[in-house]
Amino acid sequence: MIFDPRGWCALVLSLFAATASAAEGMWTLDNLPLAQLKAKYGFEPDAKWVDHVMKASVRLADGCSGSFVSKDGLVLTNAHCVLSCVQDLSGKKDWVNDGFVARKREEEVACPTMELNRLEQITDVTDQIRAATAGKQGEDYVDAKQAAQAKLESDCTGKDAAHTRCDVVELYDGGKFDLYRYHRFQDVRLVFWPEYRAAFFGGDPDNFSFPRYNLDMGMLRAYENGKPAKVKDFFPLNPAGAKPGELTMVTGHPGSTDRQLTMAQLEGLRDYRLIDMALYMAERRAMLAQYSRIGAEAARQAQTDLTFTANSLKVYRGQLEALHDPAVFARKQQDEQALRAAAASDAPWEAVAQAERVRRNHYIRYMMLERRQAFYSDEFRIARELVRHADEMAKPNASRLPEYQDSALPRIEQRVMSKAPIYPEYEKAKLTWSLTKLREAVGPDDPLVMLVLGKESPAQLAAELVDHSELADLSVRKKLWNGGAAAIAASKDPFIELARAVDAPSRAVRKTMEADVDGPEERAAEEIAKVRFDKYGTSVYPDATFTLRLSYGEVKGWDEDGHEVAPYTQMEGAFARQTGSDPFLLPKSWNAAKDKLDLSTPFDFVTTNDIIGGNSGSPVINRDAQIVGLAFDGNQHSFGGAYWFDERLNRCVAVHPAAIAEALSKIYDAGALLKEMEGR
Amino acid sequence: MIFDPRGWCALVLSLFAATASAAEGMWTLDNLPLAQLKAKYGFEPDAKWVDHVMKASVRLADGCSGSFVSKDGLVLTNAHCVLSCVQDLSGKKDWVNDGFVARKREEEVACPTMELNRLEQITDVTDQIRAATAGKQGEDYVDAKQAAQAKLESDCTGKDAAHTRCDVVELYDGGKFDLYRYHRFQDVRLVFWPEYRAAFFGGDPDNFSFPRYNLDMGMLRAYENGKPAKVKDFFPLNPAGAKPGELTMVTGHPGSTDRQLTMAQLEGLRDYRLIDMALYMAERRAMLAQYSRIGAEAARQAQTDLTFTANSLKVYRGQLEALHDPAVFARKQQDEQALRAAAASDAPWEAVAQAERVRRNHYIRYMMLERRQAFYSDEFRIARELVRHADEMAKPNASRLPEYQDSALPRIEQRVMSKAPIYPEYEKAKLTWSLTKLREAVGPDDPLVMLVLGKESPAQLAAELVDHSELADLSVRKKLWNGGAAAIAASKDPFIELARAVDAPSRAVRKTMEADVDGPEERAAEEIAKVRFDKYGTSVYPDATFTLRLSYGEVKGWDEDGHEVAPYTQMEGAFARQTGSDPFLLPKSWNAAKDKLDLSTPFDFVTTNDIIGGNSGSPVINRDAQIVGLAFDGNQHSFGGAYWFDERLNRCVAVHPAAIAEALSKIYDAGALLKEMEGR
Repeated sequence: MIFDPRGWCALVLSLFAATASAAEGMWTLDNLPLAQLKAKYGFEPDAKWVDHVMKASVRLADGCSGSFVSKDGLVLTNAHCVLSCVQDLSGKKDWVNDGFVARKREEEVACPTMELNRLEQITDVTDQIRAATAGKQGEDYVDAKQAAQAKLESDCTGKDAAHTRCDVVELYDGGKFDLYRYHRFQDVRLVFWPEYRAAFFGGDPDNFSFPRYNLDMGMLRAYENGKPAKVKDFFPLNPAGAKPGELTMVTGHPGSTDRQLTMAQLEGLRDYRLIDMALYMAERRAMLAQYSRIGAEAARQAQTDLTFTANSLKVYRGQLEALHDPAVFARKQQDEQALRAAAASDAPWEAVAQAERVRRNHYIRYMMLERRQAFYSDEFRIARELVRHADEMAKPNASRLPEYQDSALPRIEQRVMSKAPIYPEYEKAKLTWSLTKLREAVGPDDPLVMLVLGKESPAQLAAELVDHSELADLSVRKKLWNGGAAAIAASKDPFIELARAVDAPSRAVRKTMEADVDGPEERAAEEIAKVRFDKYGTSVYPDATFTLRLSYGEVKGWDEDGHEVAPYTQMEGAFARQTGSDPFLLPKSWNAAKDKLDLSTPFDFVTTNDIIGGNSGSPVINRDAQIVGLAFDGNQHSFGGAYWFDERLNRCVAVHPAAIAEALSKIYDAGALLKEMEGR
Repeated sequence: MIFDPRGWCALVLSLFAATASAAEGMWTLDNLPLAQLKAKYGFEPDAKWVDHVMKASVRLADGCSGSFVSKDGLVLTNAHCVLSCVQDLSGKKDWVNDGFVARKREEEVACPTMELNRLEQITDVTDQIRAATAGKQGEDYVDAKQAAQAKLESDCTGKDAAHTRCDVVELYDGGKFDLYRYHRFQDVRLVFWPEYRAAFFGGDPDNFSFPRYNLDMGMLRAYENGKPAKVKDFFPLNPAGAKPGELTMVTGHPGSTDRQLTMAQLEGLRDYRLIDMALYMAERRAMLAQYSRIGAEAARQAQTDLTFTANSLKVYRGQLEALHDPAVFARKQQDEQALRAAAASDAPWEAVAQAERVRRNHYIRYMMLERRQAFYSDEFRIARELVRHADEMAKPNASRLPEYQDSALPRIEQRVMSKAPIYPEYEKAKLTWSLTKLREAVGPDDPLVMLVLGKESPAQLAAELVDHSELADLSVRKKLWNGGAAAIAASKDPFIELARAVDAPSRAVRKTMEADVDGPEERAAEEIAKVRFDKYGTSVYPDATFTLRLSYGEVKGWDEDGHEVAPYTQMEGAFARQTGSDPFLLPKSWNAAKDKLDLSTPFDFVTTNDIIGGNSGSPVINRDAQIVGLAFDGNQHSFGGAYWFDERLNRCVAVHPAAIAEALSKIYDAGALLKEMEGR
């Protein structure tokens, strides 16, 4: 799954790409590669087309993409993008495994923490940021930039934070700053989710591979004022799909790419960061898998976390392997040498190398504390958000941590006030494990471990926290949210106390990372960007930033060690692949409907579109802005896509619209939804 | 714990070292660094001293060292070296956590799979091996060498395999072949084991660190003809210990070092082998830890595996980090360049690089199949040993796999016929996990996965295997052992069937590794060894081979980033370090005895002796051949010891004899054992 796990994605760095190869590129909608589209496919989109496509595309705030597919706010995305919602809602009924179809509007159920963003406008604010930061250095520079951004965002949002979200997006390493204004939807309801077995057929073994047989499809509906949102721009479904060689475009929100990192940064990733992340995820997967073996209920509790943990592990391992490919490294080295030769000095590269040395010294503590690796718990997350909310709201908007500024606040509140259930034993298992990781990472004599564990073992502390906390109670959270600093200071809730206790060291290490690593690296990247501009010109795209991008390509298989991989699979393949046991077992509904299905229906397919984590749920559209696919994954060669795009091998994997139509009409008795999507 | 997990140690390669620095070196007993000992410490051991020391030292066949400490066959080793035995015996009573003291001979209990080897004689057989292999190449060479070795070993063992074990040991990359004749003790009884909390105080967090507070001490007794073995050579305990700067010698069995690997080999270790092993162990640790959370009984079942898995993970991570030290790599690169410059051609280095490319292609399958990563189960291990035993016994001794040749056979039989209990649910958990690893490693469409899993999931197959197997029954095993090929062929036991089914692919990948990786690398190493001899002369030691070595050094702390680490801890430190919860909780017996103890008694200490995994349980002796310490670990700088010895930082960690005396007399009411050790 090319999900962008924002909570985990420590690898976001905005640098930009030079000399894009054929289908390479994640283009901002105000700078499409018009010449290439015309030359290669004879396609000349006009401004109206671009505006339409922009407004029909949506972003799922938790790390996915999607699109409107009807005038009544129906949204098509991936099943794995709505899984968290389904799990949150599966209190009494096991919708995760039984599936969910709202055949009438009144059966649609609100997702506790889902938020959709529709991009409405892009405004260049480069001059304003430049003016605010002119002549500033070091922390002053960072502060000035953050303040300017916060003001721009706040002015743009106005008093309508409930419906408007504005983000300053830094592109091309600070070569350009754009203000993205979104319409925000926070009442988002679940409409369709196939059974887990259909969505994740082949499970972790098949993840990031092809041939593939997944109905990785989910549907939501945006509501406003208690009614389905009326939208002007949407993509109708075209079950005919796209033919081999036909132009396909993906409009979605790639999370992050690292295609312009310096050698020092790539070495850091290869030599410890990705190893560390892979080890963390490997252990977490094993812990969750073993917890799941307790029984069906435990398995249900851990199912979503397990799915995403396994996915993350595969990504980190794949990226690690990609970085161990001598060819990649040699190419990167060459690129850097060419740039250095063109530069007036090596200073920016040396600054990055120095920042990387600093990062190494603080990395573990940063991951443990600020990225919460030490506190793998929903209640701790909520406690931290409550504690920080109280602290940050005492400051003027521009001085707050970015995630507590006005434009971001509704998202945090939604998460804190989520109705998603909390499972005490599950919380204990996760915390016991992650507190043990903390002690392992910094050593038992570290003051931080003394502070957190005191005289207790991880298991004892986990049990005490969970047994004595009242944060599972929404009304308690509400009081703490509304009560501000006084309520937080007075709270005896052990999770609040813990979050308070580790807040200072956590903020400290974040500050160090921002001031001494990210700051210097951003400024160095700006300088390198200038060298690159001078050398390669401007027909380039910026690294991914979880903002709307268009990539173009076509339906096309690839050559795997001399064996041609065909671009389409058919539904019959899924039945042939069944073994009778998970994850190679189709749901009952599929086996029951088998005789009714046209088994030659195309199921999944691959294209040359350049996508990455965050693009999950992106529409694959044709030049008529019709949906001809639903992107959900990359093939096994896509891991290297974080660092470079290899058009020969890297493929986007998508659900074919014919399979969507066949499944909705013949398996799920959801003809009405299909009709709505087809605009009939 | 510097335990040598032979079952896991895939990193054994026999190359040899040049230009040993001060205390560096693991010297064979027929080639001690007499000049250095005399020059630095004025010590001149004679032949009698050496013979005495050789015969007082013992090897624990499962991967540890030890020594005789009384004329009645009493053996001192580490607690962690007898833990498996204690766990095997802990059917009804929880000796693991309650401790075990045999205050009378009749209370000593036989360890199911323990074997001791006492080195009796070293004979140079280089000429015989040379004659047998002269002019041979490729597989012929390997076969001829194996046959010659088998014959030498078999002739040496004679008809007394029950009491004699003979191994041809390849030293200096085939520069020298020695025949080691051991006296074998297979009736080994448990005498003393402190509580787990005393042996592993500080647990995994403190493992490989210092200051340290572990009574990592265990005692066994060798029996012959149902009576305590009478031994002439033993080391008496000297509770005074050794003073700072005083010469200390460690006689033990370092398992393997990789100090002479080429860059291609080191890169393979750094870039995928150690990553793969660390990920495997990380997942296994998390799986075992979560299994342990089921309850006290489950925790007891998994305790030993968890301890050793955590230890292995720490070793692999530490080695990985060591290899990412640019200084180590630069030094290794320099060494290689100097050697290459001195060599007639680059051919041997290129041969190694080519072999490493082959290894990479077969590595995963080799680890999964032949190293049993896919089948983490006692019953599978037993099944494989039964299946192979039947196959191999049909061949002449010299043609068998080395581990089924006459000299090794008693060990296999002892393991197959072990009375150690098998826990069905635990077996299922381990197998479910490891079968999942198999599918992940080679992919769900791999013929091997089809063969093993068929239409089943890992959990289903694991349950079927364990529920329907009768291998937990010793009489069934006995029939299959004695019944040979016919009994194995007729068996319907699902584990036997599985072991049979995967035997051909498993042997095939082993053969490829031996013929195309190990073979060429060994021959290349011989050539490189010649270059090294020519350049550096002969006053060098061979890489470790799990055979008896002596290393010399002295009691000495080290400078840790400007802070001096003192060489001794005292018993009071253990009490101060107690938190009230595991692993920082001393046993009840210690807290009860606290007032009686002299808390200023030295507890653990560090020396500059060059040791590594396999040295666990080694005696630390003085020039009078008295025990002045019991080696059990290295400090955090010892991981790099696999690849180089850094005398500034690398330290051996040992239990002080005064702590042994204090604990035996005042905590464990085992004054008789102390008296026996002191030779009183």
